[in-house]
Amino acid sequence: MSLDYSEYLSLVQVRPDDIDLFGHVHSAKYLDYFLAARFEQMQKNYLCGMDEFLSRGLGWFLQDFDISFKRQLKMGDVANVYTRIISLEKTGSIVGFRMTNTSNKLVADGKGKFALVDINNARAVSVPDWVVERYSVKEQNT
Amino acid sequence: MSLDYSEYLSLVQVRPDDIDLFGHVHSAKYLDYFLAARFEQMQKNYLCGMDEFLSRGLGWFLQDFDISFKRQLKMGDVANVYTRIISLEKTGSIVGFRMTNTSNKLVADGKGKFALVDINNARAVSVPDWVVERYSVKEQNT
Amino acid sequence: MSLDYSEYLSLVQVRPDDIDLFGHVHSAKYLDYFLAARFEQMQKNYLCGMDEFLSRGLGWFLQDFDISFKRQLKMGDVANVYTRIISLEKTGSIVGFRMTNTSNKLVADGKGKFALVDINNARAVSVPDWVVERYSVKEQNT
Amino acid sequence: MSLDYSEYLSLVQVRPDDIDLFGHVHSAKYLDYFLAARFEQMQKNYLCGMDEFLSRGLGWFLQDFDISFKRQLKMGDVANVYTRIISLEKTGSIVGFRMTNTSNKLVADGKGKFALVDINNARAVSVPDWVVERYSVKEQNT
Repeated sequence: MSLDYSEYLSLVQVRPDDIDLFGHVHSAKYLDYFLAARFEQMQKNYLCGMDEFLSRGLGWFLQDFDISFKRQLKMGDVANVYTRIISLEKTGSIVGFRMTNTSNKLVADGKGKFALVDINNARAVSVPDWVVERYSVKEQNT
Repeated sequence: MSLDYSEYLSLVQVRPDDIDLFGHVHSAKYLDYFLAARFEQMQKNYLCGMDEFLSRGLGWFLQDFDISFKRQLKMGDVANVYTRIISLEKTGSIVGFRMTNTSNKLVADGKGKFALVDINNARAVSVPDWVVERYSVKEQNT
Repeated sequence: MSLDYSEYLSLVQVRPDDIDLFGHVHSAKYLDYFLAARFEQMQKNYLCGMDEFLSRGLGWFLQDFDISFKRQLKMGDVANVYTRIISLEKTGSIVGFRMTNTSNKLVADGKGKFALVDINNARAVSVPDWVVERYSVKEQNT
Repeated sequence: MSLDYSEYLSLVQVRPDDIDLFGHVHSAKYLDYFLAARFEQMQKNYLCGMDEFLSRGLGWFLQDFDISFKRQLKMGDVANVYTRIISLEKTGSIVGFRMTNTSNKLVADGKGKFALVDINNARAVSVPDWVVERYSVKEQNT
């Protein structure tokens, strides 16, 4: 079994409300940029969007998140947000990310650990085989 | 029947993410300050919180909103957000607001028109008598 | 003198943090979508971005804003945000907008009144001729 | 020299725009709750607010951040946000935090590493003695 998951790219626009008192994208926004990229890539690349999980009574809840900030983004920038599965675990996944600016300089990187949960009781459930299969796509579905 | 509804006050804290590139609270945040005040006052003053509406399959959807900005709020400020029913209509309400800073200077004012909807089909429904009654409280329930 | 200003289009992505407890884009976000479109169109269509204004000590402050909500946006949607100058006034501008969903159905419309201010003292200043000229472009600079 | 810094508490209100499609506070908001608490505690407890830093040409930039999510917050909740200096370093600080709900159950914990920077060139600067002194306050300045 390969541990070598594909990395995908989403573009996220900086919006005026993202800017903070230093004139940069506020640090809290990067987590949402990461999640925005995941939502898009679940739909576009893994071909199983959050809608499909929700329709089966499942959701992905973030358990742990860490980020290192390297450079600033500012108004007018577009973030290149790359994410990839680091590992699929019994009841969740670890997803790495890196963001670059339009000059391809590293802006931030880090990872998030997600639990797959039954949205009716918020309990962790085993990652089903169909998810393992979809998340292991190699070709870029773009 | 009196058209004279009570005005209530909620305090809303400015948070770092609210600040924009000019160092002021971003204009889009004022609408959320207004809604934050409404949520609190529905619970505390009208004694029928959004939870109660949701448990009955009802929700308040904003239809129209207008605001005039008079002064800036900045980091460290707390907004005094006053709201009051201007009128209760067949399927909704018009709610006025004004916000002042800690020096009691006017920061913004305006109003919102809400429809009461069945959250299962997003259709407007008639405002029930129990809502009219609760929204007509005169004493400050604080 | 023509009062017939061009309308321009910007695409704005819905992000996870935009979604509210009803599963729709939160009403406060629409104002930011409108401003995001304006920032992009100032740069791309009028060829004078906010940076240029700031470098001259000028900024556009929102004075009045009104919006009517017609349909919901949700996760996965992209908003088409059209804006156009309604009128240029001595010390500001009135800008209309309409947003549609990917099926070209109207989501929201409204307008904002902006004052051009000296950012050092927040006082309104006369709109210079070079701004009038740039804002009157007829061709789509795309 | 004592490494035992005081822990301080700030209350942060949940606002409607904080809620996500699962009906909980969106994970990205917790970072802003942490920063909101830091801003308040810098002013109220350390007696040197961000304004004072800015007036000296200094700012605190977040370099690393990690968080573990334990429980959900929802509309109507108030977060108790406790922060404390873990260590003061040559050019920055490591600040720990924990958040509890109104039942004093742990909601999230983690830490942030900040660099003290010259805001004119974004370069790290040595933490001055007056900052070390203020950040070492033992009594609760409340």
